[in-house]
Amino acid sequence: MSTKKFAKDSVTIMTEMVLPNDTNTLNNLMGGKLMHWMDVVAAIAAQKHSNRIVVTASADSISFKEPINLGNVVTLRSQVTRAFNSSMEVFIEVTAEDIPASKKIMTHRAFFTFVAVDHNSKPVRIPDLEPETPEEIELFEGALRRRQLRLVLAKRMKPEDAVELRSIFNLDITK
Amino acid sequence: MSTKKFAKDSVTIMTEMVLPNDTNTLNNLMGGKLMHWMDVVAAIAAQKHSNRIVVTASADSISFKEPINLGNVVTLRSQVTRAFNSSMEVFIEVTAEDIPASKKIMTHRAFFTFVAVDHNSKPVRIPDLEPETPEEIELFEGALRRRQLRLVLAKRMKPEDAVELRSIFNLDITK
Amino acid sequence: MSTKKFAKDSVTIMTEMVLPNDTNTLNNLMGGKLMHWMDVVAAIAAQKHSNRIVVTASADSISFKEPINLGNVVTLRSQVTRAFNSSMEVFIEVTAEDIPASKKIMTHRAFFTFVAVDHNSKPVRIPDLEPETPEEIELFEGALRRRQLRLVLAKRMKPEDAVELRSIFNLDITK
Amino acid sequence: MSTKKFAKDSVTIMTEMVLPNDTNTLNNLMGGKLMHWMDVVAAIAAQKHSNRIVVTASADSISFKEPINLGNVVTLRSQVTRAFNSSMEVFIEVTAEDIPASKKIMTHRAFFTFVAVDHNSKPVRIPDLEPETPEEIELFEGALRRRQLRLVLAKRMKPEDAVELRSIFNLDITK
Amino acid sequence: MSTKKFAKDSVTIMTEMVLPNDTNTLNNLMGGKLMHWMDVVAAIAAQKHSNRIVVTASADSISFKEPINLGNVVTLRSQVTRAFNSSMEVFIEVTAEDIPASKKIMTHRAFFTFVAVDHNSKPVRIPDLEPETPEEIELFEGALRRRQLRLVLAKRMKPEDAVELRSIFNLDITK
Amino acid sequence: MSTKKFAKDSVTIMTEMVLPNDTNTLNNLMGGKLMHWMDVVAAIAAQKHSNRIVVTASADSISFKEPINLGNVVTLRSQVTRAFNSSMEVFIEVTAEDIPASKKIMTHRAFFTFVAVDHNSKPVRIPDLEPETPEEIELFEGALRRRQLRLVLAKRMKPEDAVELRSIFNLDITK
Repeated sequence: MSTKKFAKDSVTIMTEMVLPNDTNTLNNLMGGKLMHWMDVVAAIAAQKHSNRIVVTASADSISFKEPINLGNVVTLRSQVTRAFNSSMEVFIEVTAEDIPASKKIMTHRAFFTFVAVDHNSKPVRIPDLEPETPEEIELFEGALRRRQLRLVLAKRMKPEDAVELRSIFNLDITK
Repeated sequence: MSTKKFAKDSVTIMTEMVLPNDTNTLNNLMGGKLMHWMDVVAAIAAQKHSNRIVVTASADSISFKEPINLGNVVTLRSQVTRAFNSSMEVFIEVTAEDIPASKKIMTHRAFFTFVAVDHNSKPVRIPDLEPETPEEIELFEGALRRRQLRLVLAKRMKPEDAVELRSIFNLDITK
Repeated sequence: MSTKKFAKDSVTIMTEMVLPNDTNTLNNLMGGKLMHWMDVVAAIAAQKHSNRIVVTASADSISFKEPINLGNVVTLRSQVTRAFNSSMEVFIEVTAEDIPASKKIMTHRAFFTFVAVDHNSKPVRIPDLEPETPEEIELFEGALRRRQLRLVLAKRMKPEDAVELRSIFNLDITK
Repeated sequence: MSTKKFAKDSVTIMTEMVLPNDTNTLNNLMGGKLMHWMDVVAAIAAQKHSNRIVVTASADSISFKEPINLGNVVTLRSQVTRAFNSSMEVFIEVTAEDIPASKKIMTHRAFFTFVAVDHNSKPVRIPDLEPETPEEIELFEGALRRRQLRLVLAKRMKPEDAVELRSIFNLDITK
Repeated sequence: MSTKKFAKDSVTIMTEMVLPNDTNTLNNLMGGKLMHWMDVVAAIAAQKHSNRIVVTASADSISFKEPINLGNVVTLRSQVTRAFNSSMEVFIEVTAEDIPASKKIMTHRAFFTFVAVDHNSKPVRIPDLEPETPEEIELFEGALRRRQLRLVLAKRMKPEDAVELRSIFNLDITK
Repeated sequence: MSTKKFAKDSVTIMTEMVLPNDTNTLNNLMGGKLMHWMDVVAAIAAQKHSNRIVVTASADSISFKEPINLGNVVTLRSQVTRAFNSSMEVFIEVTAEDIPASKKIMTHRAFFTFVAVDHNSKPVRIPDLEPETPEEIELFEGALRRRQLRLVLAKRMKPEDAVELRSIFNLDITK
């Protein structure tokens, strides 16, 4: 499949309300629940880009700073940043709001990767992604560095071969 | 609190059966659900080490290889690897089994960090961890490198200050 | 509170994947589950307009035509159409997609009303809504007719007093 | 199938306890959850009348008055009121109780319609319903007016053809 | 509290549809889920008799014979059989139906006991139960034998003191 | 299948955190939820012994003493005690902890039985169990008495034939 698709074609928005069973003893959203939602919203973006069944291949490291509270409204926005043969990187942004208090509480950023497969779970070729806006181009370019970091961390690439990753010591690898 | 605790004091085992709602169209466990379980089993290990309420601070990058199927039994084992003032790193190992087929299907390894807090969400000092077995010592020592990688990725440490992390280009940072 | 707000300020988008427990014996989404999602997405829009806790006051009649299948992605979009003192009407549009089949399956339209309340469940005054686009103006104007129909059906208004509703026999009351 | 069945043959009673995840910030049952329960109890009544798989065709407008609280016991009672070829109207009555306070809190009334289908989702002929008690006869007769209102609201009948519905301006259409 | 109440005052009926997540690999309802439903329907009957918060004290042995399938409608009926100071025995009958196949599949019978408590979890005196029908009288009389068996099994009564229970070797203790 | 297996081969550990939806009005874990967890952990032990699909055959009487609270960590440990042709008895021990309070709260003991079946739900022969430790031998020997009690209670054995059970009046049958 040689057609290209745009980042905007895969944008997916998911809104969740934090319910009692999603929270810990301090009435804060549990980290694992948020990762679960991230996986779902990212998988749908990957489906939209590839028009295929997709399976999660990896989740990049995520750091949780401020707590999200019971009753908050959590909005997750995902879009594909780059396609590599049969795999895609998806960028997820999360905001939480205490609406009655008119307070936007926090923002999370995360990257997941997915593989598009057929009904026998075999990887299939997917369209390339063509970035358009400056932000999309930045995400597209950073995707290569993040991919090398993933491969090194999963021990499937030797650190010395991670040419793009080297820039970690001069450049910002997480944006 | 100056007392030390051992890795074995925090060991937690969780067993889950993969139910229909946990799976995607291919009848495989969704990655986000597995991360949710990882967070719960790791949080309990962190509670056992600190005897405190704990909140998830970060999840290191996770890669998903072979699929886990509907009806499989998933066993998650967690233990604290090292304590740093008020935070802890927790190591999680996951195995999946198709018991009627006598088949142990796969193994995942992941690292999460937690902060111990009081009822006002303020971080509190926790006991140090003293590793005993060779494997615990290896996990304990690697914890420092992984911590520097986390801080660099979260942009809270400059790469040039990550002395331990440098070894990434010679040594294995993920074990 | 005399400030006005716009319809676009309350727009909320929710995306759900149809899971096994949401379906009947034919693997179709159960109507009651869809109404549950409609209520949640509409309540969040009402919260955004009023910056208040809101409680569901009514759901207008809903008709279900084509089935939504297991594995489909359901997108719900809600926005407030008009405010009346302490109550709001919210318009919900639902689309379902079978993404791997590149098929957009169906569209539902529904109207719910909500009352904004304080912590003692007492109704509170909310901002007026000012419609901007032609579609928003049409929804704003129809809100009065739908309100009279609701009051008549709930036996809180005599049919002969429902001046706007009379148009039912000449005009379209559902748009 | 020419056999007749009675309203009492389809009576279904469902009892639910309001749990934390069913409630909003004020600890009141969310409207959407109640509609979900209504759909389930009504679908079972429709199954009992038709001995078929049934799919929800419509839910009439519902108004929510007094709140139902966390811990309340909710009893839903459903029965078919009338059959039309392959579709049925089902009447649902809801009561909520705070049992330790010996307080019966509220009553909801709602009407849903269902279509009986075969395994290929094709509508199938169902038995007629023969009302027996005065209340069943009243529900049976009102079913025709409510059906015309549904068709007009769904734009599948012209208002001027809704002969029975005209009585709305003289008669009570909701009982 | 010296007032008497009747068995019929506590009758509670619960209807559940067997959903995918309630079933095992053979698409049969899991025993644990059925026990969960039994506990809920019995607790509500105990609440109705005592007008108090109740906590489960025991579940008598339950045997599962024929399987209940995915999509079956399960009806649970509970009623208090006898009151002892602050505790009550509740009898639960379960039937399962495959309605489209017009097949009533099976019947379970079980006994649970509950203690009525105040807000500090202290047991409180409850009304006596007065049986009316022959079946209620039989259940009322058997309650004493079943109570002695429970106490012996829980090692809170010596077998030689269980006068009523002795009849186990001549009489039927389970009815 | 003539091979023997050991009790330790079937040991299964499950850890659960008590969430809001698992609790009653007093914030205590509902008995039915605990029985549900017991059934799952015991079924997995039975699967491990038999390498077969298993269905619950019975649950012995369970008594609930001290309450388990919201936020407690519940650990369930199961192991097969004895095999009989195609059925197995499984022993379950439950402990609950309030970890931040360093308090181990309670212990439950229960016995469930399971039947191993093939894909047509026909019982299949399973390996014998060979007890090793003194505790395993005690559980193995008691299994015969408990089995007779189950058969008598289910009216599938006459009390006078329950030779082992007679010891109830001299010996402890529940250990």
